[in-house]
Amino acid sequence: MPSPPDLHKAQISAILRAWGMPAPQAAETADILGWADLHGIDSHGLSMLTAYAIWHRDGRLALDAVPAIVKQTPVSAVVDAGNGLGHVAAAFAMRLAVTKAQQSGIGVVSVRNTAHFGACGYYGMLAADAGKIGMITTTAAGIFVAPTNGAAGRLGTDPWCLVAPAEPGRPFMLDMATTTVAFGRVRNKLNEGLPTPAGWVLDRQGHPSTDPRDPAENGGFLTSLGGSPENASYKGYGLAMMANILAAGLSGGSFPSDPGHARGPTINLSHFFLAMDPGMFRDAEEFRADVARFAQSMRDTPPIDPAQPVMVPGDPERATAARRSRCGIPIAAGLRAQIKALADAAGADWLLG
Amino acid sequence: MPSPPDLHKAQISAILRAWGMPAPQAAETADILGWADLHGIDSHGLSMLTAYAIWHRDGRLALDAVPAIVKQTPVSAVVDAGNGLGHVAAAFAMRLAVTKAQQSGIGVVSVRNTAHFGACGYYGMLAADAGKIGMITTTAAGIFVAPTNGAAGRLGTDPWCLVAPAEPGRPFMLDMATTTVAFGRVRNKLNEGLPTPAGWVLDRQGHPSTDPRDPAENGGFLTSLGGSPENASYKGYGLAMMANILAAGLSGGSFPSDPGHARGPTINLSHFFLAMDPGMFRDAEEFRADVARFAQSMRDTPPIDPAQPVMVPGDPERATAARRSRCGIPIAAGLRAQIKALADAAGADWLLG
Repeated sequence: MPSPPDLHKAQISAILRAWGMPAPQAAETADILGWADLHGIDSHGLSMLTAYAIWHRDGRLALDAVPAIVKQTPVSAVVDAGNGLGHVAAAFAMRLAVTKAQQSGIGVVSVRNTAHFGACGYYGMLAADAGKIGMITTTAAGIFVAPTNGAAGRLGTDPWCLVAPAEPGRPFMLDMATTTVAFGRVRNKLNEGLPTPAGWVLDRQGHPSTDPRDPAENGGFLTSLGGSPENASYKGYGLAMMANILAAGLSGGSFPSDPGHARGPTINLSHFFLAMDPGMFRDAEEFRADVARFAQSMRDTPPIDPAQPVMVPGDPERATAARRSRCGIPIAAGLRAQIKALADAAGADWLLG
Repeated sequence: MPSPPDLHKAQISAILRAWGMPAPQAAETADILGWADLHGIDSHGLSMLTAYAIWHRDGRLALDAVPAIVKQTPVSAVVDAGNGLGHVAAAFAMRLAVTKAQQSGIGVVSVRNTAHFGACGYYGMLAADAGKIGMITTTAAGIFVAPTNGAAGRLGTDPWCLVAPAEPGRPFMLDMATTTVAFGRVRNKLNEGLPTPAGWVLDRQGHPSTDPRDPAENGGFLTSLGGSPENASYKGYGLAMMANILAAGLSGGSFPSDPGHARGPTINLSHFFLAMDPGMFRDAEEFRADVARFAQSMRDTPPIDPAQPVMVPGDPERATAARRSRCGIPIAAGLRAQIKALADAAGADWLLG
């Protein structure tokens, strides 16, 4: 049965508390993971606890870490996340970028010694809600991607998030992996016993495949956005490289091609946050009105199929959030059992019925 | 016969001078267009003169325009290009962004009342040569793209350029249209009487096609990067929207979905330039060394086919430039005849033999 969003967050928080995360960090981390589930980004919410549990079990997370500014200028900062889980440091970093953008027009914050921060979109939303343009990238722990023309894994799903304020509560918000699809969608096909559509995956020699077992079990890869060299997969590959240059390069962290990336005593990921005030260039309200008008002109485009109207990045997530706010957040049976087992093992209350 | 790069530039400059562009602007514009041809970006060099000639004939270009700063802060500026061709204003804007990044850590410059600036990569190179990270976007005049699920043109090929310094002269440089391929590659297939590969084009109803005449003659479209909704074309579409938000939104210029976009008395395009100093975050030399190491780890990836080694964005363009520096810049017979006719009509010397 779907759970009310508050109960869903309370369950996440209860598990984090039972692992030893202090209450304030647990509440904020649960807010951020719960936001992802509310918005339909199920791969980056509650389900992440199964991965975090392994990191926690192996003693690789400082659950009581408090982010600290180690270097700053009026427009920049380096934040050390103290090897915490990532969400608290990431929200701290984006709020700091927004404050700097408020004061100086732009703020760029690099986060080092961090782990996984959940869905990029949450931090984009922090920027947009403050009337700022936002950009976010991060390194990732999993290596699923070969560079174009390559036959060995060197990159992750290395996301970009780009946001711009429009009408209040309705920003442009693009939150995208630089692969054609995220790994979770390949796993879904595997679980259903279905082939993957052409262009999603490669076998271990780097040749096109439609077998989800290739990346999942047989040493194959996800394709970079574009899908094939002929269809410009070098663009997804290049965007992935730049995500890592901004995140790992500016923080001095580990690159996904480094031996032992994310396999040391700590997770050692890196994030990048940029917030920019459109008011530096022109009246900020006029900017927002123009972005809203531009977005509406997309929504008003005659659709190929009237049953599938044109949407703007951010619209699908908001539609899911509206529905789940009313009807609750569903959890698949298999995931529910996994999370129940985690809660039981940690001695956390089970709240989801 | 291929032309030496200097002669190639001199020919471009001679035609611009004959149209009435003052010598300094003509020299810089020729440098930038010649850079594109030297680096193999043939769609954005000499060949653009055929489009510029029409704009000039129709009195839509102020060829003697001088860019002017109309608003600025320590980290930002708005530049008015005075309805000039674009290249001079764009180089001025990126140099200004670099200067601000030198002084304040970051510089963001928005350009309004401009036209076409040639290849994005030139301006990225200005940032990288100064040791800066660079980002560039622009609006485009041509409407070739429908938003995902839409069946009417609302966007252009709306490029992004992302650069980061590495070894001197060997930066990471991604210069990409947000469509699967640029229009020129479709036109090449048309000229050769060949079908386009699956995923490049759509017919006028928005359905997949392999007929290059669909976008070229029959009201169809280029696909957004990704190629199809199933293969995440919303990502290319979203990147195109953000390119326009940064370029047109911040400058107050025209969006590609606006009625009459680029069809008024002036061209009215907009550009966006960002330069950022990695030295705000850590030792700049260590940053460059890390980017170089990351790039080299890509090049060292075992290739699918030993005849096609893995490259890093920027490598193919540099390889072409090295070859054309030695052997000259080739011009296809059809283009040569067109440019010769332009030169003759303008009363410009013909230098290319």
